[in-house]
Amino acid sequence: MVTNPTWVQALKESGRPGSKCLELEREKSNVNVDKLACLLHTNAVLERNNRLLKILQDDPVFDKSQNYFRGRDERIKAALARGKRLRQLSVQHNWTKEEYHAANELISEPTPYGLHASMFLVTLREQGTPEQHELFLKKAENYEIIGCYAQTELGHGSNVRGLETTATWNPDNQTFTLHSPHLTASKWWIGSLGKAANYAVVMAQLIINGKSYGPHPFVVQVRDLKTHEPLENIYVGDIGPKFGYNTMDNGFLLFNQIKIPHVNMLARFSRVDPKTSKYMRPSNPSLVYGTLTWVRSNIVLQSGSVLARGVTIAIRYCSVRRQFTDRDAPEDEVKENQVINYTMVQQRLFPLLAATFALHFTGRGMIALYDANQAVMNKRERGGGSADVGQLSRGPGPEELNPGADLLADLHATSCALKAHASTVAGEGLETCRRACGGHGYSSFSGLGSWYADYLPTLTWEGDNYMLTQQVSRYLLKSARAVLENASKNGNFDANLGDNDTTRILKNYRRRQDMGAAFDVLGNDEELVEAFAWRTAYLTFEALRHRDEEKRSWNSLLVDFYRLSTAHAQYMVVKNFYGALFSSSLQSSLPKPTKEVLHQLFRLYSLHTLEREASEFFQSAACTVRQIQLARTKSVPQLLEQIRPHAVRLVDSWMFPDWQLDSSLGRYDGNVYEDMFKRASEDNPLNKVIFDPYPDSDVLFKKDERSISKSKL
Amino acid sequence: MVTNPTWVQALKESGRPGSKCLELEREKSNVNVDKLACLLHTNAVLERNNRLLKILQDDPVFDKSQNYFRGRDERIKAALARGKRLRQLSVQHNWTKEEYHAANELISEPTPYGLHASMFLVTLREQGTPEQHELFLKKAENYEIIGCYAQTELGHGSNVRGLETTATWNPDNQTFTLHSPHLTASKWWIGSLGKAANYAVVMAQLIINGKSYGPHPFVVQVRDLKTHEPLENIYVGDIGPKFGYNTMDNGFLLFNQIKIPHVNMLARFSRVDPKTSKYMRPSNPSLVYGTLTWVRSNIVLQSGSVLARGVTIAIRYCSVRRQFTDRDAPEDEVKENQVINYTMVQQRLFPLLAATFALHFTGRGMIALYDANQAVMNKRERGGGSADVGQLSRGPGPEELNPGADLLADLHATSCALKAHASTVAGEGLETCRRACGGHGYSSFSGLGSWYADYLPTLTWEGDNYMLTQQVSRYLLKSARAVLENASKNGNFDANLGDNDTTRILKNYRRRQDMGAAFDVLGNDEELVEAFAWRTAYLTFEALRHRDEEKRSWNSLLVDFYRLSTAHAQYMVVKNFYGALFSSSLQSSLPKPTKEVLHQLFRLYSLHTLEREASEFFQSAACTVRQIQLARTKSVPQLLEQIRPHAVRLVDSWMFPDWQLDSSLGRYDGNVYEDMFKRASEDNPLNKVIFDPYPDSDVLFKKDERSISKSKL
Repeated sequence: MVTNPTWVQALKESGRPGSKCLELEREKSNVNVDKLACLLHTNAVLERNNRLLKILQDDPVFDKSQNYFRGRDERIKAALARGKRLRQLSVQHNWTKEEYHAANELISEPTPYGLHASMFLVTLREQGTPEQHELFLKKAENYEIIGCYAQTELGHGSNVRGLETTATWNPDNQTFTLHSPHLTASKWWIGSLGKAANYAVVMAQLIINGKSYGPHPFVVQVRDLKTHEPLENIYVGDIGPKFGYNTMDNGFLLFNQIKIPHVNMLARFSRVDPKTSKYMRPSNPSLVYGTLTWVRSNIVLQSGSVLARGVTIAIRYCSVRRQFTDRDAPEDEVKENQVINYTMVQQRLFPLLAATFALHFTGRGMIALYDANQAVMNKRERGGGSADVGQLSRGPGPEELNPGADLLADLHATSCALKAHASTVAGEGLETCRRACGGHGYSSFSGLGSWYADYLPTLTWEGDNYMLTQQVSRYLLKSARAVLENASKNGNFDANLGDNDTTRILKNYRRRQDMGAAFDVLGNDEELVEAFAWRTAYLTFEALRHRDEEKRSWNSLLVDFYRLSTAHAQYMVVKNFYGALFSSSLQSSLPKPTKEVLHQLFRLYSLHTLEREASEFFQSAACTVRQIQLARTKSVPQLLEQIRPHAVRLVDSWMFPDWQLDSSLGRYDGNVYEDMFKRASEDNPLNKVIFDPYPDSDVLFKKDERSISKSKL
Repeated sequence: MVTNPTWVQALKESGRPGSKCLELEREKSNVNVDKLACLLHTNAVLERNNRLLKILQDDPVFDKSQNYFRGRDERIKAALARGKRLRQLSVQHNWTKEEYHAANELISEPTPYGLHASMFLVTLREQGTPEQHELFLKKAENYEIIGCYAQTELGHGSNVRGLETTATWNPDNQTFTLHSPHLTASKWWIGSLGKAANYAVVMAQLIINGKSYGPHPFVVQVRDLKTHEPLENIYVGDIGPKFGYNTMDNGFLLFNQIKIPHVNMLARFSRVDPKTSKYMRPSNPSLVYGTLTWVRSNIVLQSGSVLARGVTIAIRYCSVRRQFTDRDAPEDEVKENQVINYTMVQQRLFPLLAATFALHFTGRGMIALYDANQAVMNKRERGGGSADVGQLSRGPGPEELNPGADLLADLHATSCALKAHASTVAGEGLETCRRACGGHGYSSFSGLGSWYADYLPTLTWEGDNYMLTQQVSRYLLKSARAVLENASKNGNFDANLGDNDTTRILKNYRRRQDMGAAFDVLGNDEELVEAFAWRTAYLTFEALRHRDEEKRSWNSLLVDFYRLSTAHAQYMVVKNFYGALFSSSLQSSLPKPTKEVLHQLFRLYSLHTLEREASEFFQSAACTVRQIQLARTKSVPQLLEQIRPHAVRLVDSWMFPDWQLDSSLGRYDGNVYEDMFKRASEDNPLNKVIFDPYPDSDVLFKKDERSISKSKL
């Protein structure tokens, strides 16, 4: 470590110290941080996180001080060490799955065990038979084998049906032959495969007697359990550096006619009868379907806290940073203004602050719906609902579901719309936060760049955010068609109790379409929510007209579908935020001033969205041009001003420990500049090097003390 | 290097090879790539670049194959080696400044000599006296001293007047004392300072007799010319890793009472009389002011080609990549669709393709205006224009300029608006390109992530993109006030020949405001341009009303100002693109089909912008809601379809050599997957390592062959 000269050590920051700035911010607001934090996380979770944090912070393996300086090889080495230690601690402290994942969140970087601990175990558990659990799952749970989930290929991502890897059934010896017929068949992007895994669940086209039955999961050993060298005729390795996520060993995998026994095809849902070579159909594909919905709902929930990290950093730093005097201030005013006082900064950050809560409550709402739905499904599966299940099994798309399953279909569509929208908002929001920090946002020490870069894959995986909007639109069009058919039968658009929310809003729109809406979006919260519903319904029937009446091609409507899905997602967010706000749990647990600020955040989120998407709101006549102008020029600016004093306390309530944020700019205590300077000067290994600066000399470094520090890893 | 197994070497990609895809794309279009390339670059530049490329490609120092794998320390070491070699080649081949910079563009990464070769030399040249040229500039030009430009501080970026570093005049011994009174006074972000420079031009508050005269430039030696160790009482080093730009040694710098002689204050424009200790005022600050305008105009010009790199990669890859069959295709259709055929992909990429040309022509227009203005200024300075210059010297802001200098003020405001807008469009556009490449866009081998990350500082430097919009608005408000005053004097809003374009469009709006506009935006190009002008004028007078009549605070209008500046920039881009399209040089040099495609790009850029910013267009009554709907549902989709066959040839015309792009996805020959695979497997040093995968073992790597490869650097 470099030590700064004593005269440098004696220097202070100029003007009001950052620590004082944040202190004053916290004094100004009466938001109850503890109660709000408890509402967001529960006290049990906060206590658990503190306990885990203590363990991790004390362990040198998890020391973060060199994270930002390391190159990929050093980072992945450290991540491997951390992954191992995490598992050791997990055993030692007898952690639950939740505790293990919470510890990983505090470390905030993926480890090479990431996909083993999630998708590999989950897939074995959910798609394996009891015999397969015995064979593979137990060893995997004990880390005797390390696995991954190998689906995506070099040539195929979103289109799973187009996968090229084949698994051909050999009736003679009751084996499957795994094979990669082309270069583009190479498995690609597979987390934990590049260096760590010795097993993989491989999605491959099942072929029996020359006929293809689509992609199915196979358990395949890929590396020797002792030497960890690839097995013969298997080519496996790391796919190289990425924009982020570089502590993960995403890998590639090719098979040259690899034989595996019959038992290696995961057979809970579908299987090959070894005697007859007959393919046995999946008994209940909707369960798999449910898992995807669950995963997407969790992405929605996480998007709130993912974004909250960025907003926490940006709001704290913008409260510490001062730049320029106010233009309307008296001439002799020399004190510079806190950056957060500028309306242009507020306009960028506060809607995102509102979005953190909006997305969080929406994710919670999604998961509650999912749980309710699972309960119904399980009841049906156990009880007399076999007819439903039978119909469900006809096909995997939501359009195939019978009316009894419309909650599931609605949930699926909503989870698609929200996954796409929430992760886009979070990803792009993080970049907005980074830029709002000015030049220093670009430093690695802001903690924003790496967090953004690591998060970006979420916009692509579990359904590409653009692709997903087609599924949402398909569902909305189908619902709209059903509404029209129903009305032509019954002669009206009356909603009934059996309707789900989508059907309700579509009927409501048709009923009132000719009267007009006349929502009081500025004065009445409920009508504000209804205006969002109205816009979704309007866009749905517009798209339906293009498709069914004008017979436009599907491809020509993709842009409309994207807009439609986004509108639907925004409606869901507004509706969920509103619902959470007036839920009994929130109303009973928060003091009045805190509730008031949350209410302002709800209005800001809604009205800011409304004015950003103005043209769809006025085209649908959900509101007038005048209302939009008023939202823009009066309501939003007023809300920004009302929220301003509470900004720091609101981000405090997310309760990110400094250790987790790992950000000079986002420090709880506001000691931004000292921290920045310490990292740059004392922690920075490049400062142990001396250049030879003259171009006519081929010597590069006159002195290089880094070899010493490097060997310490 | 790893060698792939022979059975892997034998594998081909499935379906139609990427090379064939691009071949067919090129056959489909009659865009004349060579003539369009010549229009964009001139043949002389294309030939020069080919010559330089040959030299660089043949030199092992510039080998790019390990770029994406290297950590920061290795990258900066390679960049130093490259910077040295570049200088050696420059001497050897007697390169001009332009050739040196062109070579650097082909290498496409900053070197530690970046700021020496630009700002250090420029500042010494422009702000130094002949005596100072002799003392400093000559040595700098010969690389006997290596310098940088040290302005930004830890606590101050945009607000230059708030800089804390002081330079106090000592009349006794005719020296200045440079001092950093606080930690926040530390120079920060200074390119080439961290490790390479031994000199710096330091911006510091000049203090004479206890009175501050604002920031001035001082030449300061910071490191020993032999040992390259920091001089005593100077603390200097690298500020650590960043989101991008990691081949540059951005540095920090603190002074503890450092004395420098009188001659070290750059004195062309202002100086301290050593005998009387009197401060001599700058004779012509507008020259400095001109430099900023020139720098910004160049950012505008570059933004086109910066974005074109991303668009080239995305359009080529989306033409190679196939995913899903068309939903409306017959059931038995198994051939997957080229991704570029999906309208959602076109909607994201083609407006950016149009923007590359729009921004390029706008940048060219700006530079032409700048040159014309410089000619006028120089004539005035030499001729009888001393009255003007005298008035110019009263202050640095555009509001201080007399009517004779209104071209300069207009140019300055336009360069601010366009710098902010163009760099935002390019930066955000690159990320759109990356995402349009799906999962593989996230791989470093896409070449998009690093290019985006390296470009991002442009959105902050040379005037933060949000801050700049205030300067633009200040100018537009001032112009609007002048228009109103003038009209109240003359009784009408008639334009006269002396008007600049801004005055013309403001008058035009006021004249026709009550009649309404009724622009034929869909049928008439000229009126389409006028609709953009109308919107700018509308927003200007709206903002003026808020400020002057409603007496709203400056701060409360910042969001409106941002919108206003963006609108003005978009008008300038549309206008310049239109002007270039019908310029005689373009009309005479391109064959008709190529001109037609460019015309479609102009319309796409304009109409896509119009429908995205719909609410401002209809609020200003520049067009009707119906026109916007038609633009969205008819014109834009039709233009996408028309441009589709020409997409690949259009990006070809930017003529980026593969070596420059360094992208698997953007290869000219379309061999995307082979290249991706080769880099991941054979070039990837992580594949020389074998993990010990079991968490209960503390061994991390069983085998590590990287040490051998590393020592090669």
